[in-house]
Amino acid sequence: MASARINGDRLRSRLEELSGIGRTPDGGVSRFSYSPEHAAAVRLVARWMREAGADPAVDAWGNLFAVAPGRAGSLPPVAAGSHLDTVPNGGVFDGPLGVLAAVEAAAAFRDAGASPLHPLLLLGFAEEEGTTYGVGCLGSLSLVGRAPAPEALHDADGRSAADALRAFETGLPKRAVPMPMAAYLELHIEQGPTLAAGGAQLGAVDAIVGISRLGLVFVGEANHAGTTPMDVRRDALWGAADLVAAVRSLVRDTGGRAVGTVGRLSVSPGAVNVIPGRAELAVELRSADAALLEALRGRVDAEARACARRHGLELETRAWRTEAPVPLNRGIQDAIAAAANDLGCSYVTMSSWAGHDAKILAAAVPSGMIFVPSAGGVSHSPRERTEWEDVARGAQVLCRTIELLDRTQAG
Amino acid sequence: MASARINGDRLRSRLEELSGIGRTPDGGVSRFSYSPEHAAAVRLVARWMREAGADPAVDAWGNLFAVAPGRAGSLPPVAAGSHLDTVPNGGVFDGPLGVLAAVEAAAAFRDAGASPLHPLLLLGFAEEEGTTYGVGCLGSLSLVGRAPAPEALHDADGRSAADALRAFETGLPKRAVPMPMAAYLELHIEQGPTLAAGGAQLGAVDAIVGISRLGLVFVGEANHAGTTPMDVRRDALWGAADLVAAVRSLVRDTGGRAVGTVGRLSVSPGAVNVIPGRAELAVELRSADAALLEALRGRVDAEARACARRHGLELETRAWRTEAPVPLNRGIQDAIAAAANDLGCSYVTMSSWAGHDAKILAAAVPSGMIFVPSAGGVSHSPRERTEWEDVARGAQVLCRTIELLDRTQAG
Repeated sequence: MASARINGDRLRSRLEELSGIGRTPDGGVSRFSYSPEHAAAVRLVARWMREAGADPAVDAWGNLFAVAPGRAGSLPPVAAGSHLDTVPNGGVFDGPLGVLAAVEAAAAFRDAGASPLHPLLLLGFAEEEGTTYGVGCLGSLSLVGRAPAPEALHDADGRSAADALRAFETGLPKRAVPMPMAAYLELHIEQGPTLAAGGAQLGAVDAIVGISRLGLVFVGEANHAGTTPMDVRRDALWGAADLVAAVRSLVRDTGGRAVGTVGRLSVSPGAVNVIPGRAELAVELRSADAALLEALRGRVDAEARACARRHGLELETRAWRTEAPVPLNRGIQDAIAAAANDLGCSYVTMSSWAGHDAKILAAAVPSGMIFVPSAGGVSHSPRERTEWEDVARGAQVLCRTIELLDRTQAG
Repeated sequence: MASARINGDRLRSRLEELSGIGRTPDGGVSRFSYSPEHAAAVRLVARWMREAGADPAVDAWGNLFAVAPGRAGSLPPVAAGSHLDTVPNGGVFDGPLGVLAAVEAAAAFRDAGASPLHPLLLLGFAEEEGTTYGVGCLGSLSLVGRAPAPEALHDADGRSAADALRAFETGLPKRAVPMPMAAYLELHIEQGPTLAAGGAQLGAVDAIVGISRLGLVFVGEANHAGTTPMDVRRDALWGAADLVAAVRSLVRDTGGRAVGTVGRLSVSPGAVNVIPGRAELAVELRSADAALLEALRGRVDAEARACARRHGLELETRAWRTEAPVPLNRGIQDAIAAAANDLGCSYVTMSSWAGHDAKILAAAVPSGMIFVPSAGGVSHSPRERTEWEDVARGAQVLCRTIELLDRTQAG
């Protein structure tokens, strides 16, 4: 059977047109949830969805979706998409790529006169980045009943999400996104350097990593930086600095199966001539392996205690906050691999080190992700870039994967 | 010859009375330069100076001074004193001890009917702590022609020192402090733990340490804390943390001849899920040995470069700012030692790890310092404490040292 073929040139021109909505002076994109730019983006993408034969609407959380009917009307839909919001001064691809590639797949099926058996559900989520309300994947969380009440969410100006949603005017009908779904597929840029460094043309994602975060404070004694001899100092920064090195070393010992970061560190009183009495820091660990993540948490706890003991410090720790790793659907991974093989593309099985809407939906829907290369691993930046041939290749593999899933899920 | 004897009970009661001016709710003292509290302190101490037979005045910088005539009118004065201002919520002893002990010595000479040959110059400097205008030892700097113009100095509210000095009303005549002086002697609390830990009853200070300060920035690349593999990270905090450990180690290797501190460290962007792209820190080194201080600066420079290289970072450094160590007068050290021996007190020769007015005057006047123990090494705090017998002992050694210098300098 001849596969439906996506139109790479159209996909490119649409990504470029969409990136004009919320364009920043230095060439990035700032498109925040429920803003006028978000509404304009929804209207534009809805028009393209309609052209592809799908019927667009928005739900109560401002998620854009559209259903193209399947040949067997009673089946749950196969869904594909991603998000339409961006971080402040973000890039062109993070989110919109997955949405417009799904629209392109729908158009390809229509152009080929080859409607799938399942309805095709195209998705453009709101507030995946968490930029406006501080809750990442808010739009997809709402689909699995895990979103906070919109009255409880406020932007930096104190305006509630409920108010913003009331004012969010897209001209589209309001409906609930159909659930359950037969599958959810998300094409996304890797946001890391692995594929671009020659790993492969595509990634078939096997899991989305778990994240554990810990805030801790080393407490010593602020004292005169001149008159206090070295051997009686209780310098809180000594403990913190040693822990930074220890986290680096512990994580490196996993041979690439985990990452670890100290992204925040502050000392007080913070004067050049005063020994730091407090050093406050935040440790983040990520791994796709839940047992490894747990073991690392234990090792970081032990190292923190050792650093405190070594320098006569007290240690205040909060509880670890952990989001467990989320394995993606094995059958969908196989379908992505088969699609890549059908199209002669190289691929690797890899984990996603960042969170995505697919991580949320995976709890309720068989979910899968396809990664394409990010030049230099850069994202959340105007310098975010994916080669146009990689964009077209990713969209084509998405389209082919839908075809394969359509048969599998129907069989 | 029977030495003049200071009155320890009176010294204690005067220190306690003076500490009531600027008393804070938690028992500390906040007495800022040119404030109403400072003026009240000047008036009170001037009254005690007058009772001791000295004639008080203030100079153009609000320094309180008083001269008790000597038997040989033409000699330059032997001076003794310290400062009357405090840090915010400081202690009872840092500054006032040296001023009131000098007043007590003058009273002792008068009570003993044993006026020195030299005039006795009692000094109560303003703004030693630099709390109000950010320039430490401002009062003593003015005596050696190194103070900035008072119009150029502003407090936190933007008021100039010139305005504050115009409004500084003490009721005393305004005159210049007589220069040159035959000697300057300052009794001060150690502000460190050495004497209190059993080192000796007194310290004869041989030098005031030099201070070298360096601001530096490690520049890496802010990046996603999940998607960036450990082996391609350029984490600026990795360089900074390694340098904190290196400074500690380099300074410890000097065996107590230097101290080193990283008192400021900040990272940006400073988010738990972003690899730090910049880490900015300040290194301070202190040593009484100029050559060692220079060698340490070189080693810190080399370590900073090594830390940057190890983690693929760039390094931005400002120039080192260095105040050279100041050796104190050898003859005065000998006089302090002789005075301690005469009085049966144990003493050690030691360096001052903090700055003092004596450090400034030493450039123009033979200068010396006597330290008494600080309980727990604590200063700049309501918990600052020196035992009353240590206070009396220090004042008696100051008095005896003046007697010995009076003969030496006259001889």
